[in-house]
Amino acid sequence: MYQINDNFQKLPGSYLFSTIAKKVNAYTQAHPEKKIIRLGIGDVTQPLAPAIIETLHKAVDEMGHAETFHGYAPDLGYDFLRSAIVKNDYQARGCGIEADEIFVSDGAKSDSADIQELFAQDVKIAVCDPVYPVYVDSNVMAGRTGTYNPDTQKWSNVIYMPCTSENGFVPEFPQETPDIIYLCLPNNPTGTTITKDQLQAWVDYANKEGALIIYDGAYEAYISEDNVAHSIYECQGAQTCAIELKSFSKNAGFTGMRLGYTVVPKDLKCGGVSLHDMWARRHGTKFNGAPYIVQRAGEAVYSEVGKAQLKEQVAYYMKNAAAIKNGLQDAGYTVFGGVNAPYIWLKTPQNMNSWEFFDYLLENANVVGTPGSGFGPSGEGYFRLTAFGTYENTVAALERIKSL
Amino acid sequence: MYQINDNFQKLPGSYLFSTIAKKVNAYTQAHPEKKIIRLGIGDVTQPLAPAIIETLHKAVDEMGHAETFHGYAPDLGYDFLRSAIVKNDYQARGCGIEADEIFVSDGAKSDSADIQELFAQDVKIAVCDPVYPVYVDSNVMAGRTGTYNPDTQKWSNVIYMPCTSENGFVPEFPQETPDIIYLCLPNNPTGTTITKDQLQAWVDYANKEGALIIYDGAYEAYISEDNVAHSIYECQGAQTCAIELKSFSKNAGFTGMRLGYTVVPKDLKCGGVSLHDMWARRHGTKFNGAPYIVQRAGEAVYSEVGKAQLKEQVAYYMKNAAAIKNGLQDAGYTVFGGVNAPYIWLKTPQNMNSWEFFDYLLENANVVGTPGSGFGPSGEGYFRLTAFGTYENTVAALERIKSL
Repeated sequence: MYQINDNFQKLPGSYLFSTIAKKVNAYTQAHPEKKIIRLGIGDVTQPLAPAIIETLHKAVDEMGHAETFHGYAPDLGYDFLRSAIVKNDYQARGCGIEADEIFVSDGAKSDSADIQELFAQDVKIAVCDPVYPVYVDSNVMAGRTGTYNPDTQKWSNVIYMPCTSENGFVPEFPQETPDIIYLCLPNNPTGTTITKDQLQAWVDYANKEGALIIYDGAYEAYISEDNVAHSIYECQGAQTCAIELKSFSKNAGFTGMRLGYTVVPKDLKCGGVSLHDMWARRHGTKFNGAPYIVQRAGEAVYSEVGKAQLKEQVAYYMKNAAAIKNGLQDAGYTVFGGVNAPYIWLKTPQNMNSWEFFDYLLENANVVGTPGSGFGPSGEGYFRLTAFGTYENTVAALERIKSL
Repeated sequence: MYQINDNFQKLPGSYLFSTIAKKVNAYTQAHPEKKIIRLGIGDVTQPLAPAIIETLHKAVDEMGHAETFHGYAPDLGYDFLRSAIVKNDYQARGCGIEADEIFVSDGAKSDSADIQELFAQDVKIAVCDPVYPVYVDSNVMAGRTGTYNPDTQKWSNVIYMPCTSENGFVPEFPQETPDIIYLCLPNNPTGTTITKDQLQAWVDYANKEGALIIYDGAYEAYISEDNVAHSIYECQGAQTCAIELKSFSKNAGFTGMRLGYTVVPKDLKCGGVSLHDMWARRHGTKFNGAPYIVQRAGEAVYSEVGKAQLKEQVAYYMKNAAAIKNGLQDAGYTVFGGVNAPYIWLKTPQNMNSWEFFDYLLENANVVGTPGSGFGPSGEGYFRLTAFGTYENTVAALERIKSL
């Protein structure tokens, strides 16, 4: 009789955003007349930029003719896309990354969940708390996280690095040395980030301690301050201790298109074994490339006209972020983030816990946000709103919240 | 100091098709004047059908307008696609599968590699020999397969079920009872299959022994004989012992589009735990859906005009299969397959081993095929040619082979 992977049974409840969707559906069915405004899941609302649509049509036409049809993509991504990425995201910033260190994928969610496969069963991971749930959940499924304590909402074998208003949302070096350190900067969910100097200190720490940093830069396009790194490879020594994950979801509205990439430098080695070779093998064996038409759309993100259009799109969302931040402050809330990231992180009022405030906002303002505790124990008492709605909805949501 | 997953180091050589690509590239660089015909990797050559192209353009236009833009897809796939799949592939054949038992993915390769995550570390897998390499390789990476013996080309903890001309390519129940049984039918690489009655015997065996069947039906569209099942769920009792993987790559030419699905029936339980719930959790945590435009293209596969166009496409490739089979037989080769699948499996001549024949064919006929030994030890002495080339190239390749 076969047996299942019982690590799955250890996961408490369902995936955060699935739970939210179910709660919202239940409310909508009970109150079909209510107009819900969703500032919860980090999904975008603006259409794809015209330059991307044009490129997509062209690529679709290519797929319709034998001479220009594209079958299986190269395992690790088309050269045209890997070259555009490395030129714009790395070489333009002085980072010594080469095109063949870029691994194109179907999105940063898959990569951030799959990357743990490269590591030994007994590595100890450290995560910022609160953080995007996929890092911990994927390690739970792999059996690395020990046992879950429902009271503390912590796993016995995970190192939590609290990021709260008390420490200015800057993770501190943990007492116990971790093997794998997940850093998402600018951070989801807090919308805060750290300076380049602070990031350099993490790189130095990892190199000194023999730890590996998994750096999730999904929100890089929203950075507005000069002293914040756009890539971890802007830091000296990062190529020997860091993997970087990037997404097209937020800078180009690709949440429904599915495209991302991961950088695994060739200098990244563990006891002589190349992690670059391992990830290449993983891609070659367990993945079959992102669709040709989507990779062409990714290339258009880096065209001059595409860049100009997407700069406007990012500005649109950041105008929302400012509206949320200012509106909440006017209403007396304590708020963080929203300067280098499209997320606003607020303290729940009147000592409500995060899910209480979720229900309160859903029922009284018909606004959907994300409970901070869903991102980790130190997220309790906080709440996330995203700037990815339309401007009209964002302003309307704020009016509703203000009048509560 | 972090440590790697050293199971990766156990994998011998690189992924089969990467090795072939490298060999062909090396030959092409040395002989740029030679015109290579590729009948190796199972990649299609016909363009996407007009009905699919039309749908793609429409879906791309939707992505360009805020009112019709689509962000994150539902975790498990859009209802429009899951409904089309279940209606056409299951209910039309009398299989009691429901739409919410369909999990849409970015392709059967990912699913066939990822499905092993659901099972305990110590399950014992059985595979047909020869077979698509991903089943074994993904279990190697997960540490389930024991040690590799380069002489026998076998893993110590894998049950091999030889499928050769001696047993008519029908796998026999193994002496040791397996936990997980991978069946790919019609088979890649041999192009052969088994009857519905023979499949029913496997379902009965699995239910009796408490084993689970992972049934890869990627080549179902090529079945031409009446006594062959199009889905394992045509067999009584399959819903309590089988997961079915399906691809859009071969029936609709989606190798560069990336779309597939997996059926996990709700009746499939292990000690009371629902595998359907586990796979849903895996999808929700580690995957973010196939692109909206690609799912719409998948829907078009099931439209009346789409079905008619794809029937022609399948017939085109099967005409190639017949040309290869007849041509090789005329040239004195012993050949199998090609009746219910787009693959021809031939015995290598003059006691050449599979890789020797690969080199021989590449160098003397400039034709690329796939060495049988790359699919497992019982593939040694065999060689695979695919029917996915153009008709002109296929005929030209056969002329070259005949004149050797």
